[in-house]
Amino acid sequence: MSTAAPRPTGQDQLWSVDEHLEDILATVRPLEPIELQLPDAQGCVLVEDVMVPVSLPPFDNSSMDGYAVRVADVAGASEEFPAALDVVGDVAAGQAADLLYVGPGQAARIMTGAPLPAGAEAVVPVEWTDGGLGEGPVSGMRARSLAPEQASGHVRVYRPAEARAHVRAKGSDVKAGDRALDAGTVLGPPQIALLAAIGRGTVRVRPRPRVVVMSTGSELVQPGEELGSGQIYDSNSFALTAAARDAGAIAYRVGAVADDAETLRSTIEDQLVRADLVVTTGGVSVGAYDVVKEALEHVGDEDEEGGGVEFRKLAMQPGKPQGFGSVGPDHTPLLALPGNPVSSYVSFELFVRPAIRTLMGLEDVHRPTTRAKLTADKALTSPKGRRQFLRATYGADGTVRPVGGAGSHLVAALAHADSLIVVPEDVESLEPGADVEVVLLG
Amino acid sequence: MSTAAPRPTGQDQLWSVDEHLEDILATVRPLEPIELQLPDAQGCVLVEDVMVPVSLPPFDNSSMDGYAVRVADVAGASEEFPAALDVVGDVAAGQAADLLYVGPGQAARIMTGAPLPAGAEAVVPVEWTDGGLGEGPVSGMRARSLAPEQASGHVRVYRPAEARAHVRAKGSDVKAGDRALDAGTVLGPPQIALLAAIGRGTVRVRPRPRVVVMSTGSELVQPGEELGSGQIYDSNSFALTAAARDAGAIAYRVGAVADDAETLRSTIEDQLVRADLVVTTGGVSVGAYDVVKEALEHVGDEDEEGGGVEFRKLAMQPGKPQGFGSVGPDHTPLLALPGNPVSSYVSFELFVRPAIRTLMGLEDVHRPTTRAKLTADKALTSPKGRRQFLRATYGADGTVRPVGGAGSHLVAALAHADSLIVVPEDVESLEPGADVEVVLLG
Repeated sequence: MSTAAPRPTGQDQLWSVDEHLEDILATVRPLEPIELQLPDAQGCVLVEDVMVPVSLPPFDNSSMDGYAVRVADVAGASEEFPAALDVVGDVAAGQAADLLYVGPGQAARIMTGAPLPAGAEAVVPVEWTDGGLGEGPVSGMRARSLAPEQASGHVRVYRPAEARAHVRAKGSDVKAGDRALDAGTVLGPPQIALLAAIGRGTVRVRPRPRVVVMSTGSELVQPGEELGSGQIYDSNSFALTAAARDAGAIAYRVGAVADDAETLRSTIEDQLVRADLVVTTGGVSVGAYDVVKEALEHVGDEDEEGGGVEFRKLAMQPGKPQGFGSVGPDHTPLLALPGNPVSSYVSFELFVRPAIRTLMGLEDVHRPTTRAKLTADKALTSPKGRRQFLRATYGADGTVRPVGGAGSHLVAALAHADSLIVVPEDVESLEPGADVEVVLLG
Repeated sequence: MSTAAPRPTGQDQLWSVDEHLEDILATVRPLEPIELQLPDAQGCVLVEDVMVPVSLPPFDNSSMDGYAVRVADVAGASEEFPAALDVVGDVAAGQAADLLYVGPGQAARIMTGAPLPAGAEAVVPVEWTDGGLGEGPVSGMRARSLAPEQASGHVRVYRPAEARAHVRAKGSDVKAGDRALDAGTVLGPPQIALLAAIGRGTVRVRPRPRVVVMSTGSELVQPGEELGSGQIYDSNSFALTAAARDAGAIAYRVGAVADDAETLRSTIEDQLVRADLVVTTGGVSVGAYDVVKEALEHVGDEDEEGGGVEFRKLAMQPGKPQGFGSVGPDHTPLLALPGNPVSSYVSFELFVRPAIRTLMGLEDVHRPTTRAKLTADKALTSPKGRRQFLRATYGADGTVRPVGGAGSHLVAALAHADSLIVVPEDVESLEPGADVEVVLLG
């Protein structure tokens, strides 16, 4: 007689991949939003509609280095008959717009981004002028620090300009009161550019989830140390921490925990303070030393906090044994993955990554999938009633080829794969050339 | 008369986008490799072929929770006629292989990952046995801590097992002496899994480049502060720092620097200690206050270190004025981008991102491009002789639609774009429906 199932669903009920995933996604809720400094909000999801407080640009300004002029003064100007204007001063970017006034017959030297001074109606680029040097068209201005006298004197303009030429109008980018970004926008560099441009130093977003990753198993030794008889290196905590980061989380790697229920329980308890999600590997199967199961499945006791973790068998290969539930006073979600490296990695991709992205409030929580033509030397077999995920390499030509075998301990093959071939539950054999579903691990 | 060109190429020579990029990529060299802890090496490029020091798995071990048996003892076993065996003890994962011996008529309870004990030839899963309880097939074992007595006594086995059944052979994943990963491999989670699994605590990789980003302009105010007359918010330093991170760099944002050559020079000098690459925005055009140009273009002076920065005009829109060169005693590469937000962002994508990825030693330094069908209400125009990059949204149906106009100050449109339409130098007009090249900003 096996251990009694703590839930009506029963320990022997076989869950489908979709049922398990659905249960996780129905349970895990996006994190509460917080106000973050703009650089810290990169990759996060905005939870507010951001309105524009002040028009962009905030004032009419020059799009060129040149001279601010009145249209009538340069009408008909040509190289043969240039318009000669008095230069009344410089307008640099950052200068107030009302420091200068351009009257009839006058011009102000103006820099890109500087406000159009009162009286001026257009900008003529410096290349259309003699730059005040009286020696024909120039290709630029001399640095003010080297030639301050060029901010005065005369300038010859060789071409006419229409009203508003080379002037960027106030509000031509966005207007005060416009909606800059919608709630739900993911903040990449261009969105951060816009938020900064409209003066937002902080924004309200869902933060990156903090994910604590721990592997369990008395056989585990940290890489770099000496391997004793019967021992292997801990790879899961390294791989899944990296994968959690890759998914957008702030990930904390806890070293391997030995197969002792009390130690595991207290380690998890210690970690809860920095966890929005806990991921364990190993100890979830039917063995006598499956400590994660032992430590977490006895729920409903009055002295236990959290909603409890349910251990299931999934109709899936690799990754049959899985645990999911919550722990601690804040009901922190916990996913207990199997311990074989390939099983834990595939389980991460299928269940933990979507959970992390749900915590972030992202809409798009799944890896992209595509269909491809199977390239293989012989037919692939798959156990009936299980959804199988085979490590594979996907070619740009729309083909996919399995790497290594189905064994869930084959880490080397995993490291050379970039995709997973999905073999549905009702398919027991796939011939070369078959059209298959592929998860792109990109 | 304009400022004398400091280089034979001449300030008025128009560089093509490809010539400028080629110059950058021919100059920037991958960073020197360093030995990093495995978690710190995520996303980095391996510079060594990594060999397998010890076979994986390091010993024959069980792939199931069950009983280690001799084949002859379970031959012909069935539910009607089970094989009854003496249980000589438990083999847990992490236990040494030589602690138990399975003799004729004997079995050892064994856990997934535990070493196959001497004498045993196969493993029967616990589900094929009565679990030592004498009451028919079971679905699992009871936790050892709850039922230590189950490690002894008798077990009934209901099915035969072939030699090596449910045994993972030593070296079946990788063998000692095999090459685990090739130099040049980018380390993602699965590669980190393999490196940890073979015991590598550190690896030799090219580190992430440290990129210092500074914007220049006396008109710039930090977001969150009060905007004065003629002032705008600094967005470039935020956007490009985020973009540098996105490209794989460790990015440091220096606030906006005022338009003063001495201040800029000393700020850059101060930052060099943490810079593998310096990116500036603004101050590169032909204006009288173009401080980046003024501060960095006078090279060849005996008291100046570094190879100097060359300022160029590119046959490109946006992004015509660009600077590239090196500064300081270590000849740290510096890219001086134009100050308009869209110009600086597009320039970053085209020139800085490939430079960062070259520093990382990546092969694939460019954004992916594709071709798409132009969707637009009217024909797009483009200046002759310039390669134009228009902000656009790319649809999964293979169409691309411009967002906003060509103005290089249109940040809002940039924030709603996911791609750039490339209009070649010799094309002045593109009709709706035209087949166009698209850079995916992903």
